[in-house]
Amino acid sequence: MSETLTHPQIQDGWFREKPTLWPGQAMCLKVEEILCHENSLYQDVLVFKSETYGTVLVLDGVIQCTERDEFSYQEMITHLPMNSHPNPEKVLVIGGGDGGVLREIVKHKSVKEVVLCEIDESVIRLSKKYLPKMAIGFDDPKVIIHIGDGFPFLEDKVNSFDVIITDASDPVGPAESLFQERYFELMKNALRPCGIISTQGECQWLHLHLISEVQTYCHRLFPVVEYAFTTIPTYPSGQIGFMLCSNDPSINLKKPLRKWTEEEEENLCRYYNAQVHEAAFVLPQFTKNVLKKIISK
Amino acid sequence: MSETLTHPQIQDGWFREKPTLWPGQAMCLKVEEILCHENSLYQDVLVFKSETYGTVLVLDGVIQCTERDEFSYQEMITHLPMNSHPNPEKVLVIGGGDGGVLREIVKHKSVKEVVLCEIDESVIRLSKKYLPKMAIGFDDPKVIIHIGDGFPFLEDKVNSFDVIITDASDPVGPAESLFQERYFELMKNALRPCGIISTQGECQWLHLHLISEVQTYCHRLFPVVEYAFTTIPTYPSGQIGFMLCSNDPSINLKKPLRKWTEEEEENLCRYYNAQVHEAAFVLPQFTKNVLKKIISK
Repeated sequence: MSETLTHPQIQDGWFREKPTLWPGQAMCLKVEEILCHENSLYQDVLVFKSETYGTVLVLDGVIQCTERDEFSYQEMITHLPMNSHPNPEKVLVIGGGDGGVLREIVKHKSVKEVVLCEIDESVIRLSKKYLPKMAIGFDDPKVIIHIGDGFPFLEDKVNSFDVIITDASDPVGPAESLFQERYFELMKNALRPCGIISTQGECQWLHLHLISEVQTYCHRLFPVVEYAFTTIPTYPSGQIGFMLCSNDPSINLKKPLRKWTEEEEENLCRYYNAQVHEAAFVLPQFTKNVLKKIISK
Repeated sequence: MSETLTHPQIQDGWFREKPTLWPGQAMCLKVEEILCHENSLYQDVLVFKSETYGTVLVLDGVIQCTERDEFSYQEMITHLPMNSHPNPEKVLVIGGGDGGVLREIVKHKSVKEVVLCEIDESVIRLSKKYLPKMAIGFDDPKVIIHIGDGFPFLEDKVNSFDVIITDASDPVGPAESLFQERYFELMKNALRPCGIISTQGECQWLHLHLISEVQTYCHRLFPVVEYAFTTIPTYPSGQIGFMLCSNDPSINLKKPLRKWTEEEEENLCRYYNAQVHEAAFVLPQFTKNVLKKIISK
């Protein structure tokens, strides 16, 4: 006999997100079925089938991805740095245990090797079981998996990667260290010349103060620093940003150096295209006002 | 003795939006105090003070505006058409009873007269009482108020307005007729040469089918038709679109014809600026694929 699964954030058939980092607001999704609930070594992991967003992965009470809108985040955090790089061959992903970023990286023919370093094996295991459209990224023979903390993993890496993507959850819990200046310094050391990093950079409507802090120390480390964002309904306030940096002052992250044809864009992407790349760096006046002050300091 | 107000959508101190038009998802906002709840001639009107979004206006269970993020919608639905027009003097607003669009229109020095036609006097009355930062738009001597249905109001108007802005709620309830082809035909007749309309155009993540229907009949009526969007946390899925049309084939809505200086932008706007204007028309690949097909028909 199968046991009926429950979760404290699911009541009367609705999941309600924990508003720890965005007080006063909460996204609710209607639940069809709880597929899995376990406490991993690092976090509370919930997978449910929603009524209108497909299967949903939740870590520590916060939505990480839904089958309906994940493509926006995965494509943008990946193709913004990848298409700004002249020839990305070696790529590192920190986090990203659902496999979606891997799926996007291997769309670039230049790539020879992708290393993924995920702290929590349960995210990979459960994504392979319940989120096959994302976990398909693990099937590519160029992918090497390392289970462990991204911070110590990076400590002995020098001149190793063309692009580093940090697909982290929020700076509470296992991903906390991935928002520290020292972590960005480690990424800087691990980059090859012409290198680019792209990290989950939080939402300008909610965490502009945090974004400006991160941008401040990025400017101490990198000659090129830019903030971009994408829209995604199931992240808090409907969007998420990316902090992008390069160690090469001649790289312009705001315009794709390499472009797909329009036909390739239609076949490869559901959110990203060359115009969307440029538009993602155009910031509303309220953000521009705050981030401009950092640059002029 | 004052009576404690209640509302069926407020439980345990949280307001939960009605998911009629976006099944399976619901935004919740924490409530500090219910300020007003009345049934007007047309709709259920609720005003509450939220914990983190300031005062919130809700019509028929759907959030219309919050003090924290309203500027994004009001600025974009207004300045996209206004700055695409060479010299907007006479402007009509259909809906917009909170006054926010009026506040934005009168920032343009060319404007000589603004007519606002709102069906529900209670929205104006309650906005003046509870949302003074938006209702300040009513204080300008150029503003003329007409209480009534926008549809019959437009029927005898010919060659009358440079810009018409339809700041409507969703196509269920009192605003239903404002999404019909006949309504767009009436707006077309009411425009002067070089005229531009801008209408609340729903969210591409939720109602792409409706957007493509509206765009199809707009193409039958106007030589220039464009869809743009803005981000706004408290609208469903965190964004809202605009359908913009012009009766003049030489007008390019995607680039501002008139620009404020950077200093003016900083003083006048919190969301809009000239770069944001252009970026608002850049659509994700999934929307581009659908709307492109309409144009090529």
